[in-house]
Amino acid sequence: MQQRSEETRANILSASQQLFAQHGYDATGVAEICEAAGVSKGAFYHHFHSKQAVFMALLEGWLREFDTQLGTIGQTALDIPSALMTMTSMTQHVFQAADGRLPMFLEFWTQSSRDPEVWQTTIAPYRRFHHLFSDLVRKGIAEGTLKSVDSEIAARVILAMAVGVLFQGLLDPQAAQWDQVARAGMEHLMHGMMLEPEG
Amino acid sequence: MQQRSEETRANILSASQQLFAQHGYDATGVAEICEAAGVSKGAFYHHFHSKQAVFMALLEGWLREFDTQLGTIGQTALDIPSALMTMTSMTQHVFQAADGRLPMFLEFWTQSSRDPEVWQTTIAPYRRFHHLFSDLVRKGIAEGTLKSVDSEIAARVILAMAVGVLFQGLLDPQAAQWDQVARAGMEHLMHGMMLEPEG
Repeated sequence: MQQRSEETRANILSASQQLFAQHGYDATGVAEICEAAGVSKGAFYHHFHSKQAVFMALLEGWLREFDTQLGTIGQTALDIPSALMTMTSMTQHVFQAADGRLPMFLEFWTQSSRDPEVWQTTIAPYRRFHHLFSDLVRKGIAEGTLKSVDSEIAARVILAMAVGVLFQGLLDPQAAQWDQVARAGMEHLMHGMMLEPEG
Repeated sequence: MQQRSEETRANILSASQQLFAQHGYDATGVAEICEAAGVSKGAFYHHFHSKQAVFMALLEGWLREFDTQLGTIGQTALDIPSALMTMTSMTQHVFQAADGRLPMFLEFWTQSSRDPEVWQTTIAPYRRFHHLFSDLVRKGIAEGTLKSVDSEIAARVILAMAVGVLFQGLLDPQAAQWDQVARAGMEHLMHGMMLEPEG
């Protein structure tokens, strides 16, 4: 039963993601989700109390894997500049994973600009990433690889660069080699923030 | 008559902007725009052949003033790093001008992810900004203030930083002093890109 229940939940999430991307969040109803997922309304409401709850579960699930990967890199890299460059090298995978999901992200942001509850959920991952990056910058200053920059502001700068590259890369994939842009951006930032190596 | 016609056009644009932001593009009809603007359907279709045409006129109008301001700074600054820092100091004005318009931008992007014609219009200003920045970087290399970086990639990096700061600042205005973030970001980038001054 447990396994079947998890399958049902996964089917609902996968059908919803496809419908939201194709027709938009507003235009997609619970009835259509149930039909596409091959589940009853009863089963739907057993797993999610609303369409919005599905929507938030999708966002959370999508971002959780990045949290894990970034955390692992932060723990294992030789020093902070290498950790940040390694994280940047994930860009291509992020683009692959995000491919075709721009409409879904836009739906998230649109909903969140209208609904404070969705806004809290949308903003939460940015805040987690901000804390991750400000921790990294503080460690970089402590280990002597980074200048004593303001770690809060530096973290926002790094995140802004990441968000800007991803956003433009999703909007206009053909315009550039976006993973090269990400690498060049982080390199320039690191040159601006790093202490000269001694000796 | 000419003056009255221009007033009608301006009323249609202003009413549409408000309705798109409040209710979304999809949920707003030409009839409601006409009612809010106090114009007849005949007058509406005299000025715009569709709701989408209104939408594109709004986007174009909003961006044209930035083109002009950025162009002027580029022409008059002492050198390229100063030009880029002066452009960055416009951030606060951009936020003031953009305040409350995130829902409208999101509508543009959502429409453009579904409609190739809207996409072309949405992407055009990014391409203009890209050309402006790559020209500036080439001039900076020629005048000897910037390292001989790849000007195409450097332009995308600068634009990504700008887009990332604006996007996050609009999504979460209270989280930071976003004009400070913009300035710090551009300073770090410039430190990474600039040749050391001689002498």
